Amino acid sequence: MISQTVEYALRAIVTMAQHEGQPCTAKKLAEITQVPLPYLSKLMQGMVRGGLVTSQRGLHGGFLLTNDPKNLTIFDVINVVEPIKRILHCPLNIQSHGTNLCPLHRRLDNAMAATEKVFRETTVAEMLSQPGSVTPLCEDKKMISLGLGSAAGVKSKPAARNAKKKE
Amino acid sequence: MISQTVEYALRAIVTMAQHEGQPCTAKKLAEITQVPLPYLSKLMQGMVRGGLVTSQRGLHGGFLLTNDPKNLTIFDVINVVEPIKRILHCPLNIQSHGTNLCPLHRRLDNAMAATEKVFRETTVAEMLSQPGSVTPLCEDKKMISLGLGSAAGVKSKPAARNAKKKE
Repeated sequence: MISQTVEYALRAIVTMAQHEGQPCTAKKLAEITQVPLPYLSKLMQGMVRGGLVTSQRGLHGGFLLTNDPKNLTIFDVINVVEPIKRILHCPLNIQSHGTNLCPLHRRLDNAMAATEKVFRETTVAEMLSQPGSVTPLCEDKKMISLGLGSAAGVKSKPAARNAKKKE
Repeated sequence: MISQTVEYALRAIVTMAQHEGQPCTAKKLAEITQVPLPYLSKLMQGMVRGGLVTSQRGLHGGFLLTNDPKNLTIFDVINVVEPIKRILHCPLNIQSHGTNLCPLHRRLDNAMAATEKVFRETTVAEMLSQPGSVTPLCEDKKMISLGLGSAAGVKSKPAARNAKKKE
């Protein structure tokens, strides 16, 4: 129901939000989100084109969120990555139906509308760690700031240079 | 969000329900549902294996629903054709997370749970034509019983033998 592409994109977006304005390289994002680097890079390009993310070049370059996580919703991300295909008219092109959906397609579209509503109302800020909950995508906030998600298979090594290289 | 496979399966199920115990051949179902015959046949095989549908051989053979449409839900169909993949544990296998989902995956799973609930509560009987609504998959109830959905591109020809053959 929620595609892997959408889930991966949300992992990347949440990771960027956790870095609070600090640029994230594709390699770092791929490690933390456990998304294969080529797949992640393609996703990031799409999100740059879609205006969700900006790309900053140079030594301390990387990807940054365009908007404040408080103003960015799950729906905004899905809408760029893989928009929900609502049923706006009869998928069988039955002339007399037109935009007057039959009960089958009305119910399917209603279910999509309800999900869309939840996603429109949920911001990225709300998906970050909350009191009493686990930190998204990582065991430890400190490890995120070092770019050492569990993804890198590192649990006790203290510095980024020790991170196991996957690529 | 709702895959084409699921949508196609529901079209076939609703069509069988409209035939009220009269067997439907794969060819007839393909015409009415506008699903390519090989695709439809494969779907029907899966639904027979999943116990949603029985196959009756012989001259007046065809597919029949196993259950009364009043006791068959959208969820039952989806569960056979393409089960919703709920998020039951951390998709990143982060040890400390386990079944304690982070806010990102909790919210995604909640959205799926809400959709699943709607689908569990909606029966196939409820998806059939209702007062004031259009008939699912067909312009006219009489045409359904003749196996002449608009799918067959037939609007005024009176007999089944005149139906335009697509396959």
